[in-house]
Amino acid sequence: MLVEACVRAKELSAPFPTVGSDTPVLEAARLLAGRNLPALIVVDEGGRPTAVLPGTQVLRMAIPSYCQDDPVLARVIDEAAADVFLAGVADRTVAELLPHERRELPVVEPGATVLEVAAVMARTRSPLVAVADKGQPLIGAITLDALLDRMLGT
Amino acid sequence: MLVEACVRAKELSAPFPTVGSDTPVLEAARLLAGRNLPALIVVDEGGRPTAVLPGTQVLRMAIPSYCQDDPVLARVIDEAAADVFLAGVADRTVAELLPHERRELPVVEPGATVLEVAAVMARTRSPLVAVADKGQPLIGAITLDALLDRMLGT
Repeated sequence: MLVEACVRAKELSAPFPTVGSDTPVLEAARLLAGRNLPALIVVDEGGRPTAVLPGTQVLRMAIPSYCQDDPVLARVIDEAAADVFLAGVADRTVAELLPHERRELPVVEPGATVLEVAAVMARTRSPLVAVADKGQPLIGAITLDALLDRMLGT
Repeated sequence: MLVEACVRAKELSAPFPTVGSDTPVLEAARLLAGRNLPALIVVDEGGRPTAVLPGTQVLRMAIPSYCQDDPVLARVIDEAAADVFLAGVADRTVAELLPHERRELPVVEPGATVLEVAAVMARTRSPLVAVADKGQPLIGAITLDALLDRMLGT
């Protein structure tokens, strides 16, 4: 158990693709779907993490807002889903997906303990935590799945 | 595009493992981690979906609450993560993970359109939508990933 006690975020961390605020939403959605990611990490021009976007946030942009408010309307619109999606995201960038209010960013330093990573994940309800030193470029990310595997010893 | 327009939830739906409110949290966590699921579907004794639990919700239970409130405390506790997790979930069941407040359940009927599924997913911010007829047992589930694959044609 001594070995387990020494595990830090850096060791759990794996390389993770990133997007910028100028990345087209369509490209971001393709990355999410193609790699089966739980969320996307947005970085600034210096490679520093600025936001972690859950996949459902990307989806929100593609759904006409009247359908989000009233699913019955979505039911009667039997359009080709791909067409609706493409129309929704055309010419839009990740910048429009970013939350307006200031939220706690799910980021930990490389030296964070497993328990610290878990606490950040639980509190922010983010299935993905970015790993970076304060004000420094992204090192990698830890998924909920990787964390649970470690905690459960599976 | 005519074919695409006819796609319904039933066709996007895939079999999905379920838990009951009496399932031990440890078993639920192992299911989540072992199968890399985005969430768990809780069913009643009749097999009807009663809740969709995001993975981070399961994690919350395993973290001492003082660590959730203050990540600095989590940092100084350099205990074996597996020990903390096992102590946290011992003798607890899924019933304790269920939200107290009444929330919209991410469930669609088998005849729901792709757009309707997307709208429910976006509004509830759930990466998983259960498929069932009203008051009937679970048929399957649609993940965000499966939905995006369909919408993007990947």
